[in-house]
Amino acid sequence: MRISQLSAASGVPIPTIKYYLREGLLPAGEQTAATRAEYGERHLRRLRLIRALLEVGRLPIAAIRKVLSAVDDPELSMHQVLGTAHYAIAPTAEPHPGDDRWSEARDRADRMIAGLGWRVDPDAPTRDELAQAMLTLGELGMPATGEALLPYAEAAMRLVSEHEIGTIRASGTREEAVQALVVGTVVHGRVLDVMRRLAQESASAGIFGDGTGKAPAP
Amino acid sequence: MRISQLSAASGVPIPTIKYYLREGLLPAGEQTAATRAEYGERHLRRLRLIRALLEVGRLPIAAIRKVLSAVDDPELSMHQVLGTAHYAIAPTAEPHPGDDRWSEARDRADRMIAGLGWRVDPDAPTRDELAQAMLTLGELGMPATGEALLPYAEAAMRLVSEHEIGTIRASGTREEAVQALVVGTVVHGRVLDVMRRLAQESASAGIFGDGTGKAPAP
Repeated sequence: MRISQLSAASGVPIPTIKYYLREGLLPAGEQTAATRAEYGERHLRRLRLIRALLEVGRLPIAAIRKVLSAVDDPELSMHQVLGTAHYAIAPTAEPHPGDDRWSEARDRADRMIAGLGWRVDPDAPTRDELAQAMLTLGELGMPATGEALLPYAEAAMRLVSEHEIGTIRASGTREEAVQALVVGTVVHGRVLDVMRRLAQESASAGIFGDGTGKAPAP
Repeated sequence: MRISQLSAASGVPIPTIKYYLREGLLPAGEQTAATRAEYGERHLRRLRLIRALLEVGRLPIAAIRKVLSAVDDPELSMHQVLGTAHYAIAPTAEPHPGDDRWSEARDRADRMIAGLGWRVDPDAPTRDELAQAMLTLGELGMPATGEALLPYAEAAMRLVSEHEIGTIRASGTREEAVQALVVGTVVHGRVLDVMRRLAQESASAGIFGDGTGKAPAP
């Protein structure tokens, strides 16, 4: 198909497609004449993956480029592709070298992960993310021990082991499996986040509201 | 305490504190002389709340202002404060008026919420967020029905009803309860997200990796 047809099929405007081509996010089409290129199903699939990472995952273009390079690299194992996606998703780690409270929080995060028996790379940026959340909770006077956060770990592992990993294993080709992995990480992360806020609103309506979902008059 | 002491106690630089004062995020100190103001414990608590929303919640200043106004408004019920926090956290909803696929996804999201028996405001932006995630999953050829996403709903509700709502109810004063609510929504959302990625890495190490957390050589 031509670029105009690719645009119609994907809902992505032509200038945006050209931008992705220039940025190397989308592979070039097959050149059939000096000013004409043909695009196929794999371009359409790739466009949808870019939009998913952008619109639902809200990843910046630089992070999307890293994820797509990993997806395209046949040398990388599934585990490495997942690591790349995690690294791209993780906000810039904010270690505070020399800050005792930070070191203590980071130790607590490491101990919690070890206590769970989880196999996580010692340099994974997610360890810093967990430490930052623990540090913040502690500063706000909220429970921030590994024990207090255990329900989150248990809910996360149950979801991953009972549902997510199974979906990935069932996927067919490497490309499909890798896409399921990346989409699963990013889009299902959003699904879980929005479900939690919906559940909170519903629980709050039962406890604090008048049952209509609107708050009572003061 | 003086502004310099407030800065030392909170770890927030003086120019940043002055910026929060100008922006109305932090209430003014008690003026004890023409060029001198006294700050107290509530300024310190407020500064910590701002930093939590900024650093862990990654909310923009405009969203933080909305959340803090709701926290400070004694007329608002807990349910309304939660709603304000949710609204501030929710990325701008992206309804696609006139787009049939969008309408269908939004219907599916509404049916799922109704089927769960959850009490959620008909205008809650979280409904659009769920619809967007469903639309994206469908476009990528991944399961996107209410049934397929049920494990996420169940995990979220279990966490909220067994742990989060209890924490909020146990809180003392309205200010403490409201802070627990806002922090719970924002910071614990991050905790759950990072736990899920840690659990994924660990599960992936077991299935795809060589058990060290590093991928095997190709």
